Amino acid sequence: MRLVTFRADVEASARLGAVVDRLVVDLGLLGEATGVPLPSSMLEFIDLGPEAVRIATALLAELDGDFPLGTALPLANVKLLAPIPRPRKNVFGIGLNYIDHVAESAAALDTSPDLPRQPVIFSKPPTSVCGPGDPIPHDAGVTQQLDWEVELAAIIGTRAKRVAREDALAHVFGYTVLIDFSARDCRRAGQWIYSKGQDGYAPMGPMIVTADEIPDPQTLDLWLTVNGVEKQRSNTAKMLFKVDELIADISVGITLEPGDIIATGTPEGVGAGRTPQEFLWPGDVVECAVEGIGSLRHNIVAV
Amino acid sequence: MRLVTFRADVEASARLGAVVDRLVVDLGLLGEATGVPLPSSMLEFIDLGPEAVRIATALLAELDGDFPLGTALPLANVKLLAPIPRPRKNVFGIGLNYIDHVAESAAALDTSPDLPRQPVIFSKPPTSVCGPGDPIPHDAGVTQQLDWEVELAAIIGTRAKRVAREDALAHVFGYTVLIDFSARDCRRAGQWIYSKGQDGYAPMGPMIVTADEIPDPQTLDLWLTVNGVEKQRSNTAKMLFKVDELIADISVGITLEPGDIIATGTPEGVGAGRTPQEFLWPGDVVECAVEGIGSLRHNIVAV
Repeated sequence: MRLVTFRADVEASARLGAVVDRLVVDLGLLGEATGVPLPSSMLEFIDLGPEAVRIATALLAELDGDFPLGTALPLANVKLLAPIPRPRKNVFGIGLNYIDHVAESAAALDTSPDLPRQPVIFSKPPTSVCGPGDPIPHDAGVTQQLDWEVELAAIIGTRAKRVAREDALAHVFGYTVLIDFSARDCRRAGQWIYSKGQDGYAPMGPMIVTADEIPDPQTLDLWLTVNGVEKQRSNTAKMLFKVDELIADISVGITLEPGDIIATGTPEGVGAGRTPQEFLWPGDVVECAVEGIGSLRHNIVAV
Repeated sequence: MRLVTFRADVEASARLGAVVDRLVVDLGLLGEATGVPLPSSMLEFIDLGPEAVRIATALLAELDGDFPLGTALPLANVKLLAPIPRPRKNVFGIGLNYIDHVAESAAALDTSPDLPRQPVIFSKPPTSVCGPGDPIPHDAGVTQQLDWEVELAAIIGTRAKRVAREDALAHVFGYTVLIDFSARDCRRAGQWIYSKGQDGYAPMGPMIVTADEIPDPQTLDLWLTVNGVEKQRSNTAKMLFKVDELIADISVGITLEPGDIIATGTPEGVGAGRTPQEFLWPGDVVECAVEGIGSLRHNIVAV
């Protein structure tokens, strides 16, 4: 299933939807119309566990495009929000998780050229999350080095504490795309939260594809362009620590909960790693995608 | 006002209380009994803004200890939880914010001996928060270097984005005590979240003292003992970046929201900075206090 959080119009409240062809089906309204209780927000849906995914998937299959009047809208007519507009804790970010990015980072920034022996974890506050197409703020008083990082993000479905690697993917609800915008000159004593955690620095979307449709998350192409010029292109096969390893590792010390988001790291091709270095400025357009999930397109805007 | 989150007994739900002498007054029940609508959770109360503090303070003063039957319980009979049991985003932590701690950290760890020119920010997930007296997990498979850090924590009352230093304290709801437990050997590529963000590594409490009772947060003694032996003793006057500077600085890039928590850094005397180094082990007892707020006492327990 392909799930979105959307507004039917600018004044409408945020709703949970399933994308079917070029329609968004409002799952809460569909539930009311068909007598199958379904929630109206993504976090409520995730909280219900895998059974809710199975029930909703079966219901959509059974209807086969014949949705009760008022329960489906053209995708082109709705405003998509971040699939989880307000995460319950900071987004987990993973640094230095593609080999060639470790090398470019060591050459350009202050990180080690050695491959990390354990996942490098940081966080982005819920206030950094924004939705598809939202403008990305560029505050020239704060940064002269705003950079791009396209990433696959895994959404946790069920509580995970000390899970084994072989059980880890069973805790994934689904996957989405996240851009880990990073103000390289806002790192402080090596800590990245101020660099990566500012308002608007974590656009997410356009949808969550449930894990049943992505049985192997380590086979996905991902790419990013700036003003139409390709800057990053790789495949999640090249991650150093795979999604299952990340979940197993984090969950040793930190309980992962339904709706938690793990941005799994970016491949090579960031602006700081280029010669000469390139950074983002107001007017620039960043576009990116992860295979099988969808694309994001964002304008950089002066604030 | 001195505010707690408490359970009347182990099976009761968490409630908002005001501590008056040796009683906990259940503010929600008191509101029902007196016809003054008051919420029953700390975050709801904070969300209502400064007017709610004034109304509740006035109500308690008017009653002058004469509480309707059932609205007040002996403090000794209740279980205190973290004042905010589930923060809405990761706790903001501030590193290297006392001069002598910068020096001991540079000598023992991997940080610079130079004083930071801007606040060093990291985060601790909501899952790391626990309440007064809760056991602190020690996982010998994860760390051999569990360390202590007593801190004053500021609780944000009203939304703050780009606030000037002179306006910053007006955004503070109150203050509490937080221990920033830190597994020194769990730092990864310099990032501290795994070191400081594990489950149970952020005990908070025992109460929030509202900001009207602490007009100047930079005058408070704070101390910490391990097994009764004093390890840290300082005063918040010695902070490099004062509470108002921290709020002004963070809010430039990251919107601070009601209920957000800023742990303002620890003074010298941590275990890693001692010769020889000292770390915590199961059976150890950590006790600490911040003047005018209260004390915390925690046992380190093997898991």
